Amino acid sequence: MGERVYIYDSTLRDGAQTQGVDFGVADKVAITRALDRIGVDYVEGGWPGANPTDDAFFAQLPKLNHARVSAFGMTRRSGRSVHNDPGLAAVLGTPAPAACLVGKTWDFHVDLALGITKAENIDMIAESVAETKARGKEAMFDAEHFFDGYKANPGFALDCLKAAHAAGARWIILCDTNGGTLPHEIERIVGEVAKTVPGDLLGIHCHNDTENAVANSLAAVRAGVRQVQGTLNGLGERCGNANLVSVIPNLVIKMGYDVGIDAERMTHLTSISRLLDERLNRPPARNAAYVGESAFAHKGGLHVSAVEKDPRTYEHIPPETVGNRRHVVVSDQSGRSNLLARFKDIGLEIDAKSPFIGKLLDEIKAREHEGYTYDGADGSFELLARRLMHGVPDYFRLQSFRVISERRFNARGDLITMSEATVKLDVGTERRLTVGEGKGPVEALDRALRAALLPFYPSLAELKLVDYKVRILAPERATAAVTRVMIESADGHAHGEIRAWGTVGVSENVIDASYTALNDSITWKLYRDGTPAPGA
Amino acid sequence: MGERVYIYDSTLRDGAQTQGVDFGVADKVAITRALDRIGVDYVEGGWPGANPTDDAFFAQLPKLNHARVSAFGMTRRSGRSVHNDPGLAAVLGTPAPAACLVGKTWDFHVDLALGITKAENIDMIAESVAETKARGKEAMFDAEHFFDGYKANPGFALDCLKAAHAAGARWIILCDTNGGTLPHEIERIVGEVAKTVPGDLLGIHCHNDTENAVANSLAAVRAGVRQVQGTLNGLGERCGNANLVSVIPNLVIKMGYDVGIDAERMTHLTSISRLLDERLNRPPARNAAYVGESAFAHKGGLHVSAVEKDPRTYEHIPPETVGNRRHVVVSDQSGRSNLLARFKDIGLEIDAKSPFIGKLLDEIKAREHEGYTYDGADGSFELLARRLMHGVPDYFRLQSFRVISERRFNARGDLITMSEATVKLDVGTERRLTVGEGKGPVEALDRALRAALLPFYPSLAELKLVDYKVRILAPERATAAVTRVMIESADGHAHGEIRAWGTVGVSENVIDASYTALNDSITWKLYRDGTPAPGA
Repeated sequence: MGERVYIYDSTLRDGAQTQGVDFGVADKVAITRALDRIGVDYVEGGWPGANPTDDAFFAQLPKLNHARVSAFGMTRRSGRSVHNDPGLAAVLGTPAPAACLVGKTWDFHVDLALGITKAENIDMIAESVAETKARGKEAMFDAEHFFDGYKANPGFALDCLKAAHAAGARWIILCDTNGGTLPHEIERIVGEVAKTVPGDLLGIHCHNDTENAVANSLAAVRAGVRQVQGTLNGLGERCGNANLVSVIPNLVIKMGYDVGIDAERMTHLTSISRLLDERLNRPPARNAAYVGESAFAHKGGLHVSAVEKDPRTYEHIPPETVGNRRHVVVSDQSGRSNLLARFKDIGLEIDAKSPFIGKLLDEIKAREHEGYTYDGADGSFELLARRLMHGVPDYFRLQSFRVISERRFNARGDLITMSEATVKLDVGTERRLTVGEGKGPVEALDRALRAALLPFYPSLAELKLVDYKVRILAPERATAAVTRVMIESADGHAHGEIRAWGTVGVSENVIDASYTALNDSITWKLYRDGTPAPGA
Repeated sequence: MGERVYIYDSTLRDGAQTQGVDFGVADKVAITRALDRIGVDYVEGGWPGANPTDDAFFAQLPKLNHARVSAFGMTRRSGRSVHNDPGLAAVLGTPAPAACLVGKTWDFHVDLALGITKAENIDMIAESVAETKARGKEAMFDAEHFFDGYKANPGFALDCLKAAHAAGARWIILCDTNGGTLPHEIERIVGEVAKTVPGDLLGIHCHNDTENAVANSLAAVRAGVRQVQGTLNGLGERCGNANLVSVIPNLVIKMGYDVGIDAERMTHLTSISRLLDERLNRPPARNAAYVGESAFAHKGGLHVSAVEKDPRTYEHIPPETVGNRRHVVVSDQSGRSNLLARFKDIGLEIDAKSPFIGKLLDEIKAREHEGYTYDGADGSFELLARRLMHGVPDYFRLQSFRVISERRFNARGDLITMSEATVKLDVGTERRLTVGEGKGPVEALDRALRAALLPFYPSLAELKLVDYKVRILAPERATAAVTRVMIESADGHAHGEIRAWGTVGVSENVIDASYTALNDSITWKLYRDGTPAPGA
């Protein structure tokens, strides 16, 4: 087992600075518990005194097994003592066992932003750290803008660290606040600092403004720091903080450090990353290192057959190590081995020698020639395969639809646009004729379809269209070009975790293509829910 | 000026391996031209012989000012000679001045995936590179899995490189194909390789599986390589390739290398990144390093006031350097200079101090709030500016349109789909009422519009819709979401080289948004052709 490196998560504090991110107390508790379960050492819960959510979180800290909660704040202000600074009092007044205080270490900021003397800045650091320790807390000092400060005035920057060290800080964290420092600079500067402050008291806090936050964190560890600060999925203002979801497996699997997360816990890495996205109500990044849905995806047929011989040919680690899985993409390059791997994913047991495989391959090729793609349309792929095996019930049969869209001036002279759709379909032996209105034609069609089907299939109330994309294929055929519509749908009410599936439709008519994709979306849900066929 | 490092873009080849990415020829041409304009050295256009799109692209290569197009392929196959290998023939048969051939350098792959002897593998490399050179092309060798190969069997991996070198390869590119190598390993191994093959013949090709592709590329340059391969926005299979949009400013602004992109061209970095997203019909990553909309966003009030005192307090570079801008509510200097730069592009001479600039900025902000974007819609941008200056004649005035789309069975029992559009508009004092049929609603509308306008404006016969894209904005608003339509149009009949322009429309109704974009497309052509207003 390698040397111990401590992980400090700041998702709930620095991550909360991201544009559009707004954690509630329930989010904070759920994320804290998940971080504790996976074995993170410190969870920075927020900034007490800064907003009511953070106050509520610190007022009732969740009981944890392993992680220590840390309260973030600033060193005392100029002109205040540590005993009469309300900001500092709020931070030190919580039951959290650790506190991390940020202070300036770049003389330019001390002069320009604070307008105080360098000596006072150093006093503010020393007194605040000493007070934190005196209050029985594990004291940490976040050295803001340390790398810019060190480049500008190394003597002063180091004096700030020395003050924190002398005052008894357990951790002194070197922050690349503006995110502009490159890995080789981090490694050099940390190496120099470690001559003054021992590396096992040093931490690193990086931002991703040059797309190097992960590399910067690793470089700092190589140069001696033993605490890494970051966030889940690299959440954070501007370009984000160092992504712990990448830092952790890099340190452990690639570099052999011990971060207190064993092999079993490491398999929860993918799920903790997805948990954060769920809490933020946003789709996970497919291309995320280690945990993304595409991180172990194989497209080319040559790659796929090599991976089947030995996954090490095209995989840098076994995906299960981090709780991810191999994903074989069906595409125009797909072969037999792609298909078999894909069947396994959807729970279809088919013999590799079955003539069905050849039939399905032919069907896929014919459809790809028409313009279909099953790359992002796992739902339509599954239906295609199962329909070919006569496994999908006939939930409804469309007889016709008509959609009208207009733009005109109404009687008052206002320009109006509207769409209206009528749908005629049969469910079993019952004929339905319904109408829907919408801002646009697809919305109108969707509404008319739902009006027709809901009385038979109430679970469709859960179905949501999450994304809708249109692409013109073969644009050189100009207006006769073919349109491909991709729809992403989701439900989740009855399924705990959010379930999402993609469907595709192709036609020379965008509405017709949309209908096909909508039809697949509805059918996939009914099929996967185990809905019986009408009259069955 | 620092040492020269060459930039090799593989967006159109390795980037095209991304799940869901499917470039058409028009996309490839537009991206190639943009890469040429910004000053990239090499554009890897695709893999001739692998698919019809790539063949069509290489059959009619765009004329470029600076960049050299490179054709990608494999070294000859085992059991073939370089003269009777159809794959190699396809790659070397294009008019592209450069060719990049990939071959194995990891003995594990040679044994397992190819099942040939190491000696034959080396022959395949040497002969293929020599043939490339003999055919008058700049020869490059992509050393697949080089870092894994070097770790497993350094002697063999180096022998492969030596063979390519001896055969006359201009560039030998070290590929971290599985993306599992860390920066410090890259730096060490490249340093060792550079003792055998001179660094100024070496390139680097990294993948982002550990979130280190950018750092790995920089580490390789520090260790001596002088070519960096990557893609725009880090496009690429699995976790993507090294992101050139980050690599380039890191090399130039931070490390002082010369990549052949001067300060003026560097200001187009943000727009080339956005252009790719437009082509892929996906929203730009807000948190992208350097070019993301949030990359220079300031949220905290303390940050903002410090930034107002001096932007260096919280910005690692001035955002204008890369064509990005600060997002704070202060006087928007960068927006102003962006606009002035765009005016120059379209030949509009406006004084930098003109109050018109502020008026246009306000108008753009209001429209961006509605969902418009002018990044990929140069035609609509120009019309917006010129309309605000009352410079665009009223070629026609729409009164109303209605579009009907249906799917039904005809009398013979065949499923048919069709669309029909009626348009009522005025040209000058003349009322036109026309009807058009089409496979889809936009085609029908386009035909009805042309039927109305052609008698007045015969030059519209040249107008072609080249691409048509739809994006749903704010998908969380589900079916009430706003639709953005981007149309790319071209003519060329009278203009020698093909002239292309983008237009945009936004509405809750896809047909309505399409109409707005069609209207701009027609109006831009009439305006740019110098067509007089009706009755003029």
